[in-house]
Amino acid sequence: MEKEQETLRAWKDRVARELDRVVAFWLDHSHDQEQGGFFTCLGRDGQVYDDLKYVWLQGRQVWMYCRLYRQFERFRRPELLNAAKAGGEFLLRYAQVAPPAKKCAFVLTRDGRPVKVQRTIFSECFYTMAMNELWRVTGDARYQNEAMEMMDQIVSWVREDPSGLGRPQLPGAPASESMAVPMMLLNLVEQLGEADEELAGISAELGDWCAQRILQHVQRGGQAVLENVSEDGEELSGCLGRHQNPGEEWEWGGLQMWGLPASLHTGHRGPGWDPGFQMTPLCSQLEWAMKLWWPHSEAMIAFLMGYSETGDPALLRIFYQVAEYTFHRFRDPEYGEWFGYLNRDGKVALTIKGGPFKGCFHVPRCLAMCEEMLNNLLSRLAPASALSTRSPPAGPTRPGAE
Amino acid sequence: MEKEQETLRAWKDRVARELDRVVAFWLDHSHDQEQGGFFTCLGRDGQVYDDLKYVWLQGRQVWMYCRLYRQFERFRRPELLNAAKAGGEFLLRYAQVAPPAKKCAFVLTRDGRPVKVQRTIFSECFYTMAMNELWRVTGDARYQNEAMEMMDQIVSWVREDPSGLGRPQLPGAPASESMAVPMMLLNLVEQLGEADEELAGISAELGDWCAQRILQHVQRGGQAVLENVSEDGEELSGCLGRHQNPGEEWEWGGLQMWGLPASLHTGHRGPGWDPGFQMTPLCSQLEWAMKLWWPHSEAMIAFLMGYSETGDPALLRIFYQVAEYTFHRFRDPEYGEWFGYLNRDGKVALTIKGGPFKGCFHVPRCLAMCEEMLNNLLSRLAPASALSTRSPPAGPTRPGAE
Repeated sequence: MEKEQETLRAWKDRVARELDRVVAFWLDHSHDQEQGGFFTCLGRDGQVYDDLKYVWLQGRQVWMYCRLYRQFERFRRPELLNAAKAGGEFLLRYAQVAPPAKKCAFVLTRDGRPVKVQRTIFSECFYTMAMNELWRVTGDARYQNEAMEMMDQIVSWVREDPSGLGRPQLPGAPASESMAVPMMLLNLVEQLGEADEELAGISAELGDWCAQRILQHVQRGGQAVLENVSEDGEELSGCLGRHQNPGEEWEWGGLQMWGLPASLHTGHRGPGWDPGFQMTPLCSQLEWAMKLWWPHSEAMIAFLMGYSETGDPALLRIFYQVAEYTFHRFRDPEYGEWFGYLNRDGKVALTIKGGPFKGCFHVPRCLAMCEEMLNNLLSRLAPASALSTRSPPAGPTRPGAE
Repeated sequence: MEKEQETLRAWKDRVARELDRVVAFWLDHSHDQEQGGFFTCLGRDGQVYDDLKYVWLQGRQVWMYCRLYRQFERFRRPELLNAAKAGGEFLLRYAQVAPPAKKCAFVLTRDGRPVKVQRTIFSECFYTMAMNELWRVTGDARYQNEAMEMMDQIVSWVREDPSGLGRPQLPGAPASESMAVPMMLLNLVEQLGEADEELAGISAELGDWCAQRILQHVQRGGQAVLENVSEDGEELSGCLGRHQNPGEEWEWGGLQMWGLPASLHTGHRGPGWDPGFQMTPLCSQLEWAMKLWWPHSEAMIAFLMGYSETGDPALLRIFYQVAEYTFHRFRDPEYGEWFGYLNRDGKVALTIKGGPFKGCFHVPRCLAMCEEMLNNLLSRLAPASALSTRSPPAGPTRPGAE
């Protein structure tokens, strides 16, 4: 028991220190002091190698800063809040390509001109997450109005009429649904419903709908989670149908309250620990040959959450194993933050710390969630001994194990 | 001299045998006997893992089969011709998404329904190459009409009005030109102008225009060839501007008659031989961490062509070095054809033999061109001793060194 506490505490300290280093990296290198918003195309040492602003990552960084500001006393600093607000203003001013139409750009120039539009919902989803978090830290209703209006549009695109997304209707294009869509929507339902019983009630039906759609992706007698299925929930042929995304499966951990079974996400380790998580052979996807940062950080969360909720010591052991590997291979002790892309053998493949898809989100979020969970575990073991660095949570605590 | 001949002959035999094996792989595994056209999504052992038909690769395989049929006596076989014609009919029937509009799909279902349209010219270009080659082997004017009409449309999109390509005009999208476009056009000019003085005359102006546009990509005082430059021929900022594509630089070898300097493409070895060719760090492109088949096959062609035209023995030595590495690392002695994607350390990253981008084109084309060049070199050294497996060329021979 003592030993167990020691190990937990050691990891808690390690994770908290790493969170500090990671946040410092983004504080030091990513803020566009002139235009607002964030540079995410950062080289190993934090130098900006491209000033394009990717909208998912703008939304995510605003969200992350607000979340840290809200939940950790040591992050309740003006520089975080100001940068989040500046990022929010940048989104408000520039994200939508042709206002009042709600469609947002995928990527903008440094000064906010649209470069590319992606015909998916994700820019709009991260915009919504950002606006809602900004409202929660500032109390400014303007942000919440933005969040609610954008949410309505997203739901309309997904459940009623996708034509506003601009996807061409080609005869051969498979009628398929990507798991990422209901998962993202469920995240939005959780985000907007936090500490808001009325809203949570309204969106319960939407949450159930999302959970049902997600469960359709459990195929082959429960043995596989497939990224794309037909609209009727059947397996698809070809590479599209075979596509698996273990990183997303780990993200199920956070959606357990919606009826997604815990046993699937922690029992199913994806394509095998060799060590590190390989993407399933995606036919011709180059990522198959690589190990990416975010499935590893999501796995850390999933196993620690699984242990928190079930008490099964095997899950804690796996958490330590995954965390040890991840820290060892992805961390950069010299310049801070984590490399994003390793080869199959665990060596660094690309030295960038941020790019079109890697920003201030998965890594700090993982560390923040793990710090909180480890703190809670320590509290349970020996209430007087857990050094709490958190202020009381601003939202509902996680429901207990089923 | 003797030793030199021996080495040349040994390589000629090796290349010719490999060409036979490679062609056999596609003959054995890729023909859709029912619908026509070709499966290019082939696993290591040739098994089809996806039946989607990628239009660039349909055009390229039709072209390749016709070219082999025309230029090598041993490939003058009905099965090649019939498969080429079936592939041509498949393209005629299905490539265009909404006839009479000329825009072609990027990818079709097995039975020819469009899945995706790419707003570039390359499907149409490979369609044109295929139609012209089919005309050359069959004499059927229908194919040539198709080729000429499609060529007119492509030239119109590139030089007059690109709106038919459907690209959105976003304020932040850089006005840039990719080097691949004038290079591809120049290939079409050469293809259509073969043994056709009238056509060659008409298209001389277009060829010069393409060469000028290509030369705009030579930047930094002649030290770098950049894939994307501004419309005024200036370097661009960010990742877009830094993008280099060494595989394309090797392809310059074939365009020397248009005034592109030989010294640039053979003197400039791209990002360094470590061994094998690394793509230049493309910021966040995953390919940077990998070695791909086609830059290596293009490099083989470039160095052998450079030697053929200049007689500089250093170029022949480099050819042997590149060819030895390429054969060693990419060939699959067990199942035939070549792997497409290696890690940086030269180990196989993906075991597929074909996919959305790898088809029956770069590898057989490289081997065919090298066999022809090695044969010619042997003829020059000792006219009586070169065993010619070729029938007399059907088109103009390459111009001599400048």
